[in-house]
Amino acid sequence: MDDHSSKAAPAVRALLFDTFGTVVDWRTGIAREAGAFLARHGIPGRPEDFADGWRERYQPAMQRVRAGERPFVRLDVIHRENLEDLLTAWGADPARLPAGELDDLARAWHRLDPWPDAVEGLRRLRERFVVAPLSNGNIALLAAMAKRAGLPWDCILGAEVVRAYKPEPRAYLDTAEVLGLPPSACMMVAAHNDDLAAASAVGFRTAFVRRPTEHGPGQSTDLEPTGPWDHVVDDFVELAERLR
Amino acid sequence: MDDHSSKAAPAVRALLFDTFGTVVDWRTGIAREAGAFLARHGIPGRPEDFADGWRERYQPAMQRVRAGERPFVRLDVIHRENLEDLLTAWGADPARLPAGELDDLARAWHRLDPWPDAVEGLRRLRERFVVAPLSNGNIALLAAMAKRAGLPWDCILGAEVVRAYKPEPRAYLDTAEVLGLPPSACMMVAAHNDDLAAASAVGFRTAFVRRPTEHGPGQSTDLEPTGPWDHVVDDFVELAERLR
Repeated sequence: MDDHSSKAAPAVRALLFDTFGTVVDWRTGIAREAGAFLARHGIPGRPEDFADGWRERYQPAMQRVRAGERPFVRLDVIHRENLEDLLTAWGADPARLPAGELDDLARAWHRLDPWPDAVEGLRRLRERFVVAPLSNGNIALLAAMAKRAGLPWDCILGAEVVRAYKPEPRAYLDTAEVLGLPPSACMMVAAHNDDLAAASAVGFRTAFVRRPTEHGPGQSTDLEPTGPWDHVVDDFVELAERLR
Repeated sequence: MDDHSSKAAPAVRALLFDTFGTVVDWRTGIAREAGAFLARHGIPGRPEDFADGWRERYQPAMQRVRAGERPFVRLDVIHRENLEDLLTAWGADPARLPAGELDDLARAWHRLDPWPDAVEGLRRLRERFVVAPLSNGNIALLAAMAKRAGLPWDCILGAEVVRAYKPEPRAYLDTAEVLGLPPSACMMVAAHNDDLAAASAVGFRTAFVRRPTEHGPGQSTDLEPTGPWDHVVDDFVELAERLR
């Protein structure tokens, strides 16, 4: 048995989910919408590379907020800014593209599809636990994604609620406080070892979910757990079985 | 036709609900739990009066936050403080009562039952609109209430998300901003004219729901609309019919 249920720790009451990569397949969804956009405007290049380039700009942009160089700003704004930066890098002038189309493409992050097990797994987990995203995505993004995909969250939590981006300790600790729970009654569920390491460092329980194609067929990171996580599973349905 | 749909205003995208009194019957639920507590500890008095006394302490306590006399504090904390104040007024010494029982009674606000039409009405409204509470209740309270009662919110919004208590203009305006919508695409749904007046003043659309027994059989306030609200209905199912 590799979980802590036999120890004196309080029972887990809430499961908090990383979203991009853990619940939804961002790369396929962004490549699909970007592909149509690139074709329409005659911009050459692989849609998957466009998706990767957009995602690569995500951490540095949030880092400016984490470092205090910029006040908290929601992820929708960062996605829109990074889209312009990316288009420029791809040789296109964003000022010459229709602003309404850019706004719509930036909202492609609201329209990502869940991994095949996600909805059914969450439905089962929700019977016993509070389930919520603890994502760097903003509330409108996560709510639109959930409504479209049928993700049965109990509430939408994350960076915008606590005004802090993961992996800042405050992002986890303040989320536990919002729920009225000690960190040890919260379990972070993520496909990313660094997210689990940060959550674990402040007392969260942890579950690693393998998502070996998040970054496409050649993925080389986060294929296996790198820490002593409480659970390691292949999907959310398996997690529900493990936590019964 | 008493709505604005024929004017140039943008279509309503989100319905924001007052909760205590509009979605749930707080007086009956609090009286039920308070009655058991009072009997157990031999404290004389009518449970309904206890519920009313608790609720009467709600606005003055929030007013201290609104007036800047105190930093933002979530409603769970205010409910717990006001419970001690109320017990003292009823001649009981809260320091001599079990703290765990007081904590549990303070969470009776998490366990309120919805009005009979609420779940079905929200389910129908959710098919066409984003539905969320815009309540002075905190996130944990509203999420627990929704999970117990089956309220199908798309997300939990309200005072804690925007750090402002209604009827401050910011409570409404910042909620619209979180949703990425102009105020005119948001409709406030409430059984209280003052809530609708404050929402309307910052550009929200409005729907008044009659809840003539919120304050018991002798209710004298909010029996009828006192402003030019966009819709006036008897329950959420009627609202769903009106907004089809």
